[in-house]
Amino acid sequence: MRIVLIAAQSLDGFITKHDEPGTAFTSPEDKAYFRGVLGRFDAGIIGGGTYRVSRDFIRANLPGRLLRVVLTRSPGRYAADVVPGKLEFSDAAPAALAAELRGRGCRHCAVLGGSHVHSLFLEAGLVDEVWLTIEPALFGGGTPLLARRADVPLNLQSVDKLGLHTLLMKYAVRR
Amino acid sequence: MRIVLIAAQSLDGFITKHDEPGTAFTSPEDKAYFRGVLGRFDAGIIGGGTYRVSRDFIRANLPGRLLRVVLTRSPGRYAADVVPGKLEFSDAAPAALAAELRGRGCRHCAVLGGSHVHSLFLEAGLVDEVWLTIEPALFGGGTPLLARRADVPLNLQSVDKLGLHTLLMKYAVRR
Repeated sequence: MRIVLIAAQSLDGFITKHDEPGTAFTSPEDKAYFRGVLGRFDAGIIGGGTYRVSRDFIRANLPGRLLRVVLTRSPGRYAADVVPGKLEFSDAAPAALAAELRGRGCRHCAVLGGSHVHSLFLEAGLVDEVWLTIEPALFGGGTPLLARRADVPLNLQSVDKLGLHTLLMKYAVRR
Repeated sequence: MRIVLIAAQSLDGFITKHDEPGTAFTSPEDKAYFRGVLGRFDAGIIGGGTYRVSRDFIRANLPGRLLRVVLTRSPGRYAADVVPGKLEFSDAAPAALAAELRGRGCRHCAVLGGSHVHSLFLEAGLVDEVWLTIEPALFGGGTPLLARRADVPLNLQSVDKLGLHTLLMKYAVRR
């Protein structure tokens, strides 16, 4: 199973603008790309914080074959939100969750934030690729792409324009 | 006078790797590009912290027409290092320094870091362009590109490969 970290950030590495939760700062082009790209994945993993910010949107948009798994210390808290095979909650460690998804037949898994989930999966050595949208702005503050220090060397695979000023860069994690 | 902020960072926005001062993390391709690009500028502005890290290198490499100005609260402290027209020290505010350099005939000025100097010149509205090298790594910590919160919208001008995995992105500050 291939695991891809997918995120959008300011040029200087912030996935939120200052203290604003969510991704209101991203371009229409990134939003369209993000909706489309999820169709190429079987599973998408997000953290509890990201889920709480995006709950209404996620529950109104549970697309075809995508299983969304919310990583949280308190899965029981969300029992009423469970839609088996579409929206599930787990307190498993990243490697155990990945193994479970693989066992359920997932072949393409997206890690969709926030920064704690990014760090968890990178630290576990589970991320194969990083697909990063770069929006044309400097924020100088906000939620960083990663929650903790890391040293992850990458190989550039491609760089493309999503819009006039928005770039999509794809990297493979160097092993 | 055109003012260009020139920096190299990790993909996630750090201009140092963790607590390591300087830019040992940058690729040979970026180091070659950086040496070459300075030849296109009349003046380069750095902060006192950056100067202290790079002092020996700078004093051994005072190229042709480039005036390096070190912004510091204590110019007098560096009196012995002054090489008029090549290496000078100033405690002027950014706008006053820019006006002085313009008056001395400078047409192309580079702002070369660190993060406090980046923020000072952006906050003063003096930066016309941002030329950023993106090295293929995630650091999750280090010195950020900017020292303080900002909201600087940019227009993408170009993206080029400096090497197999290193990108050079040029943006104009949107006014």
